[in-house]
Amino acid sequence: MKTTSPRRTFLKQSAALGGGLLLLGSEAHTSRAASTETKPAGSGAPVANETLRTIQNLRTIHGNFLDKPLPEGAIETILQASVRAANASNMQSYSIVVVKDRAKMKEVCTYQGSCLLVYCVDFNRVKASAAHLGYTYFPDNLTAFVTASINTTMALQTAAIAARSLGIDYLITNGIHRGDPERVFSALDLPERNCLPLIALLLGYADKPATGRKGRLSEPGIVHHVKYHRLSAAECDAVVAEYDDPARHLGLIEDWREKGSAHYLEWLFTKWARPFDTATEPPSAMSATLNRHGFIHAATNK
Amino acid sequence: MKTTSPRRTFLKQSAALGGGLLLLGSEAHTSRAASTETKPAGSGAPVANETLRTIQNLRTIHGNFLDKPLPEGAIETILQASVRAANASNMQSYSIVVVKDRAKMKEVCTYQGSCLLVYCVDFNRVKASAAHLGYTYFPDNLTAFVTASINTTMALQTAAIAARSLGIDYLITNGIHRGDPERVFSALDLPERNCLPLIALLLGYADKPATGRKGRLSEPGIVHHVKYHRLSAAECDAVVAEYDDPARHLGLIEDWREKGSAHYLEWLFTKWARPFDTATEPPSAMSATLNRHGFIHAATNK
Repeated sequence: MKTTSPRRTFLKQSAALGGGLLLLGSEAHTSRAASTETKPAGSGAPVANETLRTIQNLRTIHGNFLDKPLPEGAIETILQASVRAANASNMQSYSIVVVKDRAKMKEVCTYQGSCLLVYCVDFNRVKASAAHLGYTYFPDNLTAFVTASINTTMALQTAAIAARSLGIDYLITNGIHRGDPERVFSALDLPERNCLPLIALLLGYADKPATGRKGRLSEPGIVHHVKYHRLSAAECDAVVAEYDDPARHLGLIEDWREKGSAHYLEWLFTKWARPFDTATEPPSAMSATLNRHGFIHAATNK
Repeated sequence: MKTTSPRRTFLKQSAALGGGLLLLGSEAHTSRAASTETKPAGSGAPVANETLRTIQNLRTIHGNFLDKPLPEGAIETILQASVRAANASNMQSYSIVVVKDRAKMKEVCTYQGSCLLVYCVDFNRVKASAAHLGYTYFPDNLTAFVTASINTTMALQTAAIAARSLGIDYLITNGIHRGDPERVFSALDLPERNCLPLIALLLGYADKPATGRKGRLSEPGIVHHVKYHRLSAAECDAVVAEYDDPARHLGLIEDWREKGSAHYLEWLFTKWARPFDTATEPPSAMSATLNRHGFIHAATNK
């Protein structure tokens, strides 16, 4: 029996997923049994199901969306799915603003589609219901913000998967928290305190058939077994080569050679994600934003 | 034709979802046509599909998990699904540590199941591949942390939905970032800089059949149309009443009356989510944690 490393198995399985169909081949079975410490009872490999196929077909559309309405009831269905995501203490520390006006969409996120769902970290409903009963609730600290960001994002990702299951295309943009979030506050009349527009889901239909989906790195460096695995020099070489491999579709652009880079990651680190220059560039705006909107503890600035 | 408010329609639809089947009744169609400004072409309401049913059956299990292995290949299938989530610039600024040892799971998150996936915000692979090519990459700022947290959480939620589609139960815990994250660093040998264990997904099988799923608030205060809607006093009353309604299953406990509270939210705000006392309590530990692990800009502390 030939043994295969978990990494090789994972990559091979991932490659086989290119067409969107998830099928674990028999070689994956034998190799896994040989390479993992706990051999599960032989209950057979998971069968691809519609949910897994939907997930394998997730894609973010960066092109234009048609000016075409969503099917009747689709937004309600997606919102009902979205709120099913788990959340801390069932306090649902988020708000979802539904924008159907295309000019407003453009104002908020620079893109236009059939509908924009703006997901905000938001404690105002919780605070208002506490105050209504005569209690106070202070979410003014970074821990609360991080927990609420997780709640908000789980709801958004659930909405994205629900939309995809309905054949609806989407764009997920974090431009609303990475750009100037103040314009979003005024465009949507958001509360000034304890609310932050975090991420948005633009729904609609792409004007062109989708091109191939982006690849993903898997191992090493993404999935770690038992404990964290630090990349060796050889593994760094392998990562660089994976990004360079046109068949893997890992990069944002394909013409990095024409643009004068020896590797895709060279283009990424010199042209796209340039090193942050601590000497000359201003620090992240996020700290000021979180402070301004009451997510950092006023008395201690933490 | 009877008109119904969007809120009433949403609640009615949500109530109809109790059994996990998503069906938009005809009343929802007519009411929506009457109450929204844009009436989509009559392409019919979305039909419940397997993905939507899986999402409606999402639930976090807080009881014990059996000491029972997952089916052959399930972890790989879930991980392959997880990495399909969208992420900023396809840089996958996260790591997923797979823990199968039950004693280790308990050490990391206090719970035990068949497998624990620890999702970490992590820039080390990106930094290492940059350094390998002679470049530097500094993710040492809060904006990078927030963006990476979103990437990490979208991957986690996708894994949770994939697991549920395979009939696997789960617990999502943010205890690893809300408690003392330092024990997770040592348990999993995480890099000290630019890595933070954010949230964990415990997979397995509950030892008891699931009880009813938790309800969710929808409107007002969660979903906002066109722009943000601030709760009126009457709406605050309605929120309080929704939490008090035993049929809605919104609360963490059912016996808050026996515990001496007049409303569930009174119990929540006095016994569970107590007001943060700025005078006597230490500030959020998150700021110190982010500083210690290199997510806050060293030179400017932002």
